[in-house]
Amino acid sequence: MLESTVAAIGPLDESAMAAARELHGRLTKPAGSLGALEPLSVRLAGLAGGCPPPLPEPAAVAIFAGDHGVHAQGVTPWPQEVTAQMIGNFLAGGAVVNAFARQAGASVTVVDVGVATPLPVDPAATAAAGDTTALAGPRLVAANVRPGTRDMTVTAALTRDEARAAVETGIRIAQELIDAGAGILLTGDMGIGNTTPAAALIAAFTGVDPAQVTGRGTGVNDETYRRKVDVVRAALDRHAPDPADPLGVLAAVGGLEHAALAGLILSAAARRVPVLLDGVIAVSAALAAAAFAPDAVGAMVAGHRSAEPGATAALRHLGLDPLIDLGLRLGEGTGALLALPVVTGAVRVLHEVATFDSAGVAEK
Amino acid sequence: MLESTVAAIGPLDESAMAAARELHGRLTKPAGSLGALEPLSVRLAGLAGGCPPPLPEPAAVAIFAGDHGVHAQGVTPWPQEVTAQMIGNFLAGGAVVNAFARQAGASVTVVDVGVATPLPVDPAATAAAGDTTALAGPRLVAANVRPGTRDMTVTAALTRDEARAAVETGIRIAQELIDAGAGILLTGDMGIGNTTPAAALIAAFTGVDPAQVTGRGTGVNDETYRRKVDVVRAALDRHAPDPADPLGVLAAVGGLEHAALAGLILSAAARRVPVLLDGVIAVSAALAAAAFAPDAVGAMVAGHRSAEPGATAALRHLGLDPLIDLGLRLGEGTGALLALPVVTGAVRVLHEVATFDSAGVAEK
Repeated sequence: MLESTVAAIGPLDESAMAAARELHGRLTKPAGSLGALEPLSVRLAGLAGGCPPPLPEPAAVAIFAGDHGVHAQGVTPWPQEVTAQMIGNFLAGGAVVNAFARQAGASVTVVDVGVATPLPVDPAATAAAGDTTALAGPRLVAANVRPGTRDMTVTAALTRDEARAAVETGIRIAQELIDAGAGILLTGDMGIGNTTPAAALIAAFTGVDPAQVTGRGTGVNDETYRRKVDVVRAALDRHAPDPADPLGVLAAVGGLEHAALAGLILSAAARRVPVLLDGVIAVSAALAAAAFAPDAVGAMVAGHRSAEPGATAALRHLGLDPLIDLGLRLGEGTGALLALPVVTGAVRVLHEVATFDSAGVAEK
Repeated sequence: MLESTVAAIGPLDESAMAAARELHGRLTKPAGSLGALEPLSVRLAGLAGGCPPPLPEPAAVAIFAGDHGVHAQGVTPWPQEVTAQMIGNFLAGGAVVNAFARQAGASVTVVDVGVATPLPVDPAATAAAGDTTALAGPRLVAANVRPGTRDMTVTAALTRDEARAAVETGIRIAQELIDAGAGILLTGDMGIGNTTPAAALIAAFTGVDPAQVTGRGTGVNDETYRRKVDVVRAALDRHAPDPADPLGVLAAVGGLEHAALAGLILSAAARRVPVLLDGVIAVSAALAAAAFAPDAVGAMVAGHRSAEPGATAALRHLGLDPLIDLGLRLGEGTGALLALPVVTGAVRVLHEVATFDSAGVAEK
């Protein structure tokens, strides 16, 4: 499934992009006056293979949740149980991602791809993996590959087979959401400690030093921060992952949610549906997706610039400029949801704005 | 009306802001993880005088349109008739501001406060000034103070009485929109040549040199740009406006739409309703509003950073950080509309997100 997905990813359609550029020149606005929205809409035309590209509706957030063996190294002050507790909060609609999703009209799918502690939800209320009522209210998909990764400072976080299973879970979730009609996918994540593997992935794929890509996550103090940098460096020294082998990198220093997000991104690219990236977890997964298939970058839209320094390093490596830059560092998909109206607006211009000719407006 | 509006503007409510900060600390997210959205929501609580502040709904865009005598100096390649023609486009729903307003669920009110050429609309279809169906589809309010300003390089652009009439038009439009239920006002503008008086206003209020606050507007070439800087400098040299006399500054080097926007902002502040600023025209008007009443800044939210250099100088002077920074330079209210979901989202968090206690989530 991974290989066929990668094989289906191709370049942007140049003729659709040329048509979008030409249309922009005839709309009732000065050329270029919509700034970054214009090249974004052109790229989405290239992804869709036509102009105008479809409005990115409905939107679907997929939140992949997992735990991390490296939690044992004291990289975060939060107890591991919070991952499972927050899944309960997502399903009850009480988290920030739920508030933003309601506002944006986006569905929320929570995927347990590797939570370590018991979920505080009634198993009978848990949708089976493969559920197809994909665009309804918050729902849970049970797809636990293993109960958290192993401690990457001691051994590989995952076996290659486990990493592949997580990637393919992401591919399958994307397929379900797109089959259900989603016009854009938004990445979400939940996992106490997951900025540590994100930093390791970013260092591995970009070659930037761990000290420059490791951040304070949800708020660690100086001592914990220094330990976190040491942990990332120790894991990379131990495994020396090869950036040309993305499955190997994900297995060595990744997380189950990072691997699943890489799969979601690859599947969106293969289906030529845009994928709106959230913060540092998403962009670390996007680096893996780009290593599997460089053309996957054409489907990626950077929702926001996370306050985590690794996010900026990853975005630079991918050549993506974020739409929102407001210092968010929450995750869950919140930054992607804030950016969604910008993406929709960029496409809407190509659908709805009058031309100089049709509106009877003189040109300069 | 201007004096009573200014007198009604007061400081933010500190106890409401303290309550919002305290609530943020109990919501299910790491403290501070929503970045700039947290202080924004705190400030809006202070403006409303309670926590949570009301959701900023419905939203109303007010587009003030005017022409400029300084057009005769060749500061733009666009013919003056485009101002009137674009009003026709706004009323037909074909402009970018209409597309973005439909997406955001915002009403559009177009106010002819000083257009110089005939409007391409049936006068019978023109709502009388004072129309109260304020939050319906695009509508036109006829409130023409004079058919364009005078050439500010030759004489004052407006008399003080004309400037006051335009400011009070803005006050009246804000009152109508708020009386009709608007929960937030968005500034819009249309006026061929209006970045030239905006640059003059910004230079006058901030003291920054004209060469640093004058931009290329909707796209002027090098020769026109140099002329534009010379025009701004000549007007300021001729009138030497006193920044402590905002009505005098608006009269000397302003525009009718700039003056009306200053009134709209003052009226919103007096009614303690947030006003979401668009680009360089809006922030130049905001400087005038702040000169009338420094506390008016408490009601202002900077929607975006226009590509015009003067916008950044004005925002710095006001102490405001923009929510969106995507290189837009269109005006009309488009940048404010793109930022609206961020403002709504910031407030929504205080309404809808569960607390650690209520959601059963452990703290660090």
